[in-house]
Amino acid sequence: MDNGGFCDDNYQSGSSDDELVDISEVTVDFSEDVPPLDRDYSAGHCKEEWRPNNSPKLMDLLDDTVSGIGTYEDFNTIDWVREKSKDRDRHREIANKSKQSTVALLFSISDAFSGWLLMLLIGLMSGALAGGIDIAAHWMTDLKEGVCLNGFWFNHEHCCWASNETTFQERDKCPQWKSWAELMIGVSEGPGLYVVNYFMYVCWALLFAFLAVILVRAFAPYACGSGIPEIKTILSGFIIRGYLGKWTLIIKTITLVLAVSSGLSLGKEGPLVHVACCCANILCHFFTKYRRNEAKKREVLSAASAVGVSVAFGAPIGGVLFSLEEVSYYFPLKTLWRSFFAALVAAFTLRSINPFGNSRLVLFYVEFHTPWHLLELIPFVLLGIFGGLWGAFFIRANIAWCRLRKNTSLGRYPVLEVVVVALLTALLAFPIEYTKMSSSELISELFNDCGLLDSSKLCGYTSNGGSTSGSVNATAANGLGARLAGPGLYTAMWQLALALVLKMVFTVVTFGMKVPSGLFIPSMAVGAIAGRLLGVCMEQLAIRHHEQDIFRGWCSPGADCITPGLYAMVGAAACLGGVTRMTVSLVVIMFELTGGLEYIVPLMAAAMTSKWVADALGRESIYEAHIRLNGYPFLEAKEEFRHKTLATDVMRPRRGDPPLSVLTESEMTVEEVERLIADTTYSGFPVVISQQSPRLVGFVLRRDLVISLENARRHQEGVVSMSPVLFTECDPPLSPSAPPAVKLRSILDLSPFTVTVHTPMEIVVDIFRKLGLRQCLVIHNGRLLGIITKKDILKHMALMANRDPDSILFN
Amino acid sequence: MDNGGFCDDNYQSGSSDDELVDISEVTVDFSEDVPPLDRDYSAGHCKEEWRPNNSPKLMDLLDDTVSGIGTYEDFNTIDWVREKSKDRDRHREIANKSKQSTVALLFSISDAFSGWLLMLLIGLMSGALAGGIDIAAHWMTDLKEGVCLNGFWFNHEHCCWASNETTFQERDKCPQWKSWAELMIGVSEGPGLYVVNYFMYVCWALLFAFLAVILVRAFAPYACGSGIPEIKTILSGFIIRGYLGKWTLIIKTITLVLAVSSGLSLGKEGPLVHVACCCANILCHFFTKYRRNEAKKREVLSAASAVGVSVAFGAPIGGVLFSLEEVSYYFPLKTLWRSFFAALVAAFTLRSINPFGNSRLVLFYVEFHTPWHLLELIPFVLLGIFGGLWGAFFIRANIAWCRLRKNTSLGRYPVLEVVVVALLTALLAFPIEYTKMSSSELISELFNDCGLLDSSKLCGYTSNGGSTSGSVNATAANGLGARLAGPGLYTAMWQLALALVLKMVFTVVTFGMKVPSGLFIPSMAVGAIAGRLLGVCMEQLAIRHHEQDIFRGWCSPGADCITPGLYAMVGAAACLGGVTRMTVSLVVIMFELTGGLEYIVPLMAAAMTSKWVADALGRESIYEAHIRLNGYPFLEAKEEFRHKTLATDVMRPRRGDPPLSVLTESEMTVEEVERLIADTTYSGFPVVISQQSPRLVGFVLRRDLVISLENARRHQEGVVSMSPVLFTECDPPLSPSAPPAVKLRSILDLSPFTVTVHTPMEIVVDIFRKLGLRQCLVIHNGRLLGIITKKDILKHMALMANRDPDSILFN
Repeated sequence: MDNGGFCDDNYQSGSSDDELVDISEVTVDFSEDVPPLDRDYSAGHCKEEWRPNNSPKLMDLLDDTVSGIGTYEDFNTIDWVREKSKDRDRHREIANKSKQSTVALLFSISDAFSGWLLMLLIGLMSGALAGGIDIAAHWMTDLKEGVCLNGFWFNHEHCCWASNETTFQERDKCPQWKSWAELMIGVSEGPGLYVVNYFMYVCWALLFAFLAVILVRAFAPYACGSGIPEIKTILSGFIIRGYLGKWTLIIKTITLVLAVSSGLSLGKEGPLVHVACCCANILCHFFTKYRRNEAKKREVLSAASAVGVSVAFGAPIGGVLFSLEEVSYYFPLKTLWRSFFAALVAAFTLRSINPFGNSRLVLFYVEFHTPWHLLELIPFVLLGIFGGLWGAFFIRANIAWCRLRKNTSLGRYPVLEVVVVALLTALLAFPIEYTKMSSSELISELFNDCGLLDSSKLCGYTSNGGSTSGSVNATAANGLGARLAGPGLYTAMWQLALALVLKMVFTVVTFGMKVPSGLFIPSMAVGAIAGRLLGVCMEQLAIRHHEQDIFRGWCSPGADCITPGLYAMVGAAACLGGVTRMTVSLVVIMFELTGGLEYIVPLMAAAMTSKWVADALGRESIYEAHIRLNGYPFLEAKEEFRHKTLATDVMRPRRGDPPLSVLTESEMTVEEVERLIADTTYSGFPVVISQQSPRLVGFVLRRDLVISLENARRHQEGVVSMSPVLFTECDPPLSPSAPPAVKLRSILDLSPFTVTVHTPMEIVVDIFRKLGLRQCLVIHNGRLLGIITKKDILKHMALMANRDPDSILFN
Repeated sequence: MDNGGFCDDNYQSGSSDDELVDISEVTVDFSEDVPPLDRDYSAGHCKEEWRPNNSPKLMDLLDDTVSGIGTYEDFNTIDWVREKSKDRDRHREIANKSKQSTVALLFSISDAFSGWLLMLLIGLMSGALAGGIDIAAHWMTDLKEGVCLNGFWFNHEHCCWASNETTFQERDKCPQWKSWAELMIGVSEGPGLYVVNYFMYVCWALLFAFLAVILVRAFAPYACGSGIPEIKTILSGFIIRGYLGKWTLIIKTITLVLAVSSGLSLGKEGPLVHVACCCANILCHFFTKYRRNEAKKREVLSAASAVGVSVAFGAPIGGVLFSLEEVSYYFPLKTLWRSFFAALVAAFTLRSINPFGNSRLVLFYVEFHTPWHLLELIPFVLLGIFGGLWGAFFIRANIAWCRLRKNTSLGRYPVLEVVVVALLTALLAFPIEYTKMSSSELISELFNDCGLLDSSKLCGYTSNGGSTSGSVNATAANGLGARLAGPGLYTAMWQLALALVLKMVFTVVTFGMKVPSGLFIPSMAVGAIAGRLLGVCMEQLAIRHHEQDIFRGWCSPGADCITPGLYAMVGAAACLGGVTRMTVSLVVIMFELTGGLEYIVPLMAAAMTSKWVADALGRESIYEAHIRLNGYPFLEAKEEFRHKTLATDVMRPRRGDPPLSVLTESEMTVEEVERLIADTTYSGFPVVISQQSPRLVGFVLRRDLVISLENARRHQEGVVSMSPVLFTECDPPLSPSAPPAVKLRSILDLSPFTVTVHTPMEIVVDIFRKLGLRQCLVIHNGRLLGIITKKDILKHMALMANRDPDSILFN
């Protein structure tokens, strides 16, 4: 992966070369008479002595006195156990020091509160950015249609607020707002106006899309897409340097506005999660506690993803549950509480910016007032089925398209692709009212219940049937006439049906292009259209057949017993659920968008059906599908491993392979170790007592080993190729003429995880998931037989699921 | 612990003696030529053969063909890993069979949906029970004051609804409702009325309390208390037979109503969680999948605790988060979704019962309309501090009281204790209006904002200052007069202050008595009183000093800028948070009680402060304190283990102790094994290759070993005391004259968990928590050195925290 020439040194340790300390000299020298190979652990005074000496050494090591030890390379997986131990050591040290002086006590208190401060800052920054994005996108979306003469920086709505000539009836007509045709050719009606406006709309759309893709290409290739699959992978312990860096943040923020404004079928919700995570990562730099520890940083990033959803939907609780359910890997309860805090701060920051002028956090906040009837659960379940089918179709179609892009020459012209898709979208979207408006506005209009003065075509009920924007006082009218569809509604219906098809097609090709693109909003739009269509059908059915048994006693004539807006909402939830397979978080987000508990049951019915239907057609959510497409080493926590294989079937070496590359405790020389390092690419080596007696002593990481040997060669006197490398705690008796030994016990992990050859793989997978391991050694009757790495497990799982095991790219 | 003579066979396996199968004959006989002690695992054909033969044997074993193998004794901890493996085996079997026939396919589908059906049933049953409890408690609480002449089964409110003579102004006065004095001595005013009513009130209270404690003592001792500490322990994997049985359910439901009605300072929320868990446990009996598997059963119980809180507070989301945050131990995402479903079903069942006649699920649902000002955060934080102090004080005082009860003769008279406390409560509560009413009503009144026609003394503002129940149209009045306190309010204030003290004292002594008792409601009542007092003070301050800088621009004269009801709510949240240390779930429950997102920030500020203050004074919540008091083996997931000890410091045997009791693979006879079992009380034994070469082969549970040996002696021909016991996969060559061997490899756990002696205890604790282990073996350089059990860890943690390590009672 090319990271586009920008530099982001997130994962570099700060220490420079002259801080290097010769760790081999730190090792305590035991004068020994116990034979090294066959000593009994429980006898011998080594036991009494190694601990007190070992502990401070471990501390030094973890303080990065030797540059590089304890850090990770790009595209590698972190060791959760080690990171958490590091943090506990830090805590212990601070707690011990705090008893000694007041300054240290104050430091300890400030350290305890720094997590909260960080959350506050993330909330404020993300909320502010989200507000800025909302305002800018709103303005630029309107810019495609015209400009405000009072000031070009006003959007359409804002422009007309300032005007005195606006009436309540026609809120969006005001003389200060000029369409491009009015400005350029001076006409205010006729085909010329339409053609010029059409042309300008397409031009702006192309310009925005082109700018977006060019900026992404030039400055931050990681800024493309929704970012959620990568964030899931990062949270599971993978390292992608620069993915959450400042350049990604800046470019993603700008290009997100451009992409949304260009009218492409994409949303800003997924990218907002990425933006929030970038903010979190950047802010982590100011707190040693988080900068230095990959596990702690991931706790913060989990909270940041909650923040992202919180500002995207104005749903702090839903955001926290989204982070818990969909994104996070390691989510301790402390993080739950902090996430909630950060999500609330962000929501209130956004609210005080008030980007939509409605005191709400989202454009499509609704309050329904009519209760629903139990029989309506049938259409809601139907919507659930539609949502599930859409989810399954979308995932397959999108993955197929992305695979096509990857494998054919299509992938070589990302700019052209974006421009062509933007051109087609704009050309086809302009003539239809519901595709011309932004998706958020569309959803807002579809969710809305027809009120007294609604000028929308969707409220084109009869009585004043001739007018396309008829507004009817539904409750005042009598008999059938109240909510009977008029021509306005019929027009709206077929336009919506057309919009549905267009949205579906364009969403499939858009998601995955080289611009920031979320799929929450497009998915919701698809569902909302379908829901509204069904809702209107149900409504007309109820009105026309209100005397029939099933409607009687529930739908009295004249009362609006069916709310098409609710159907739109349920449809939106169903489609979003089908694509993302969210469950609780989906229902809670939707609950936070509506007024009350009343509508949870319809939402739940649709979400459950949608998930079942979609799961029956394919287990993966869109994010998991993209993770697999990209070959990230992600160990899914939800999917149970159901096969009856054992550790022995998965471990390396396989039968017939050369034996496991191991180091011995005291038999190898520097040269031999270096040759082993050069000959292999493994990222770590087990250390055993001897080749003849392969009983496990510990595990050493390649990176640590390389650094320590180089260090010893450079700084320790007399070290030559023939010097022995010792991992023992007590030195073996060496002849005085022998070269000095390189003592490396301090970099040895003395508590590697082990399983037996008979351990079922389901348990091994469980251990890897729950403890966040990178590798695990396989033992039989006390002898080391093999090793299982995370990659081995992923390959084995792919093999068992009849997928290509070589699709997993990284370690 | 005496479980009161009732029988509950939850944990007994259903198979009888004649189903017993000789497992030793199932063992496959390998004809062997590999020497047993020194064979190399990777060579030899045993490897090729053991797996296919072993797998079906394992399945048989897990199907309980030998009665008792795979079950647990009372007061023991389950093995999560084994239970989960069992479930996966079940799944695999069903999935395999489903491919073979349509019937099996249908069975597989019904199996998949049985979890949802179970959730539905739990929701319906718990919702219905909660509705019944609410109605009964409401009626019996009113019975203490009087009776309805239209029908004794009407409560006060219901009685007056039916009456035509009730006016809106005096809703609770109607001729059909007669106080006991009116009925018995015929007076309707004067001191006689008061005395007789007082007397009857105390009598009823005593009767209810006496009945409650007698029923608990006689039929279900487990029905006492809140049940949450025990449920937490059960969910963490402990077995307490009968704790969730049908007798406990019946008696807890009845006595809960009695206890609440008796006017004791207790609530029904905690016990409702226990009731829901009993329902879940009983319903689990009808589903093989859950009956047979302790881990699956615990998933269901986690969902049931969400259901309990959902019906207690009408807060399904809050309930799920409560279960996640406070109660559950193993909470996979699938359970999250199912819990949510069950919680919703229960909430809607309760709502359709409509116990309060207000279409709400709780008595104290509120909607506020006035926004709060940023400066009000100061009093909210003060309330948080109060809540934290109350929490810390309550926990210490209650634990001290419970310890006193345990250690002195007080504990020998539980009936007398309850009667005396009930008597004192009733005697002191009757004269004060706010303690006489039930706690829910009190909270409801305190939360309530003073409206136009409120007749409560708390709304006794001036203008009609003389009347004690003055109702003022606050918005219509001008100037200072609007909300200035009148004499009615002053009376209310000192009565509230008195009530605060009484509630605090009585709550401390009541929680832990031998009646069902929750502490949510009493804690909330304490906080609500404190909050309301502060709220009124703030309000009066603002009105009297509205011209001062801090109030200007926010509190214009005449407007009600401060809502005392909101203060009461914030106070309630703070106190509840201090006692239970809930965080997100607390805020979400409170959020679900109020209308909107608006008030989350005050609630959050108070909850955060309260938790910090309380944590600074003591880390444990009331539940954890009670768990520790009772010595349950509960490994807290929240508290991090911060000490720098190693596995070697904790493992048994200690230095100087006799060596670890181990079995050898093939060197022991039946007699030796039986002697080892008789001499020790360990619940399991490691199996090693030989005493000389203590390399680990596996682990065998005492219970399984005892059953298998008995079985072999009874059913296998020729087994005598000198018969060898073999755990090997390949038989050692035996002389033909030797007695036949007892082959026990099938009961051997071949994948015991191991750690090295150098593993830091923090990692060991983490492994125990995350994987739900019972024991773990300690290895050094391939040799078995010791064992660490859950109890060892708990003792070590107690020791490190300077507590008495012998307080942990069970295994």
